[in-house]
Amino acid sequence: MTGNETADGAEKRRFVEVAKRLIAERGDLVSRTAVATGASVSRARIEAVFPAEADLLDAIVEQWFDEPVAIMEEVLASDLPANRKMYEFFARRFVLNRQRYRADPAAFKVYCDLGTAHFDRLESYIDLGDHYLCELIAQAQAEGAFEGLAIGEALSLINQMVAAYTLSDMIVFLDDRLSEEKLGRIVDTLFAGLSARDGGARGVKGLRAA
Amino acid sequence: MTGNETADGAEKRRFVEVAKRLIAERGDLVSRTAVATGASVSRARIEAVFPAEADLLDAIVEQWFDEPVAIMEEVLASDLPANRKMYEFFARRFVLNRQRYRADPAAFKVYCDLGTAHFDRLESYIDLGDHYLCELIAQAQAEGAFEGLAIGEALSLINQMVAAYTLSDMIVFLDDRLSEEKLGRIVDTLFAGLSARDGGARGVKGLRAA
Repeated sequence: MTGNETADGAEKRRFVEVAKRLIAERGDLVSRTAVATGASVSRARIEAVFPAEADLLDAIVEQWFDEPVAIMEEVLASDLPANRKMYEFFARRFVLNRQRYRADPAAFKVYCDLGTAHFDRLESYIDLGDHYLCELIAQAQAEGAFEGLAIGEALSLINQMVAAYTLSDMIVFLDDRLSEEKLGRIVDTLFAGLSARDGGARGVKGLRAA
Repeated sequence: MTGNETADGAEKRRFVEVAKRLIAERGDLVSRTAVATGASVSRARIEAVFPAEADLLDAIVEQWFDEPVAIMEEVLASDLPANRKMYEFFARRFVLNRQRYRADPAAFKVYCDLGTAHFDRLESYIDLGDHYLCELIAQAQAEGAFEGLAIGEALSLINQMVAAYTLSDMIVFLDDRLSEEKLGRIVDTLFAGLSARDGGARGVKGLRAA
């Protein structure tokens, strides 16, 4: 059984690679039929691996998130303090995405558009990222950071303040205005300044002319 | 002359309104010819107001930025402390954009796509926003905030940390996950935590397994 499973896994990976090549060429999602033609196999053989069109899409998405998920799990399992973990948690995935973007900007933009169009297929991965970030926030709070905030509040605020480094569209838009150094300052800012304390930015009075 | 200028200005505004209605209907930029037809005027008359196609686009962009520019100038001219100004600087434009989005989500998305496609026509407005934000950062630094950072560094970091509230695409994407309350906490976080001090998030050592 193990031998067969491995062979099946290798074939699935090969079909996904063919699909990715075709997507990059055509600038749009491709069908199982196109992948069968591109891989020189029968329609029946591709359907054995991907019973529905959505299974092909899910396999592409799964492969896309393989590395980011491994990064998050490796960072979470490390023995670093929370601020170091949070930096690595965001920075390593940002560097990976930047590499992917710069290796083939046109293909990366196609994947951004596909991600927007099929956002429901990404949600379980986004939820997993939020789950891990909540673990990290809990560790940070145990170490004295983010005082007074519920974990869900801190999660939302942190996600918004680092969005430039986590959303693929933003990496395309901002490109070399983003850097590991700036991300480090942002994480330092979060640990130094994010709490439930009302610093008065919203104030209580309206504007008066000077 | 003044009477004629006012009449010309009113005609220009009317043509821009026709253009905006057509853009919302068609989901794409429209030509001067289409605006002439929509406004029931001759091609010569529209060309007197918009000598080139780009002049029509610039007039639409100018009208789009009328209110945001007025907001920025009103906030800058007020006598509030820097943290209150910075909140109002971002929050009032965010609320305006959210109103525009919710009033007609489809049309708003068309304007987002047009903004991306004709980004060069927006740059002078983005530069103006950066100019005003630099003034605000200088005031904040005079009041003791953002210690040790060059104004340009603070500008880039602040723009990145509030991007969810300033970029129209992000307002579409995040919608009701954005709020004035969260923006207030973000500005409080900036004033409490953003500085040149190295908090250690980037660290000096690699990851070790726990």
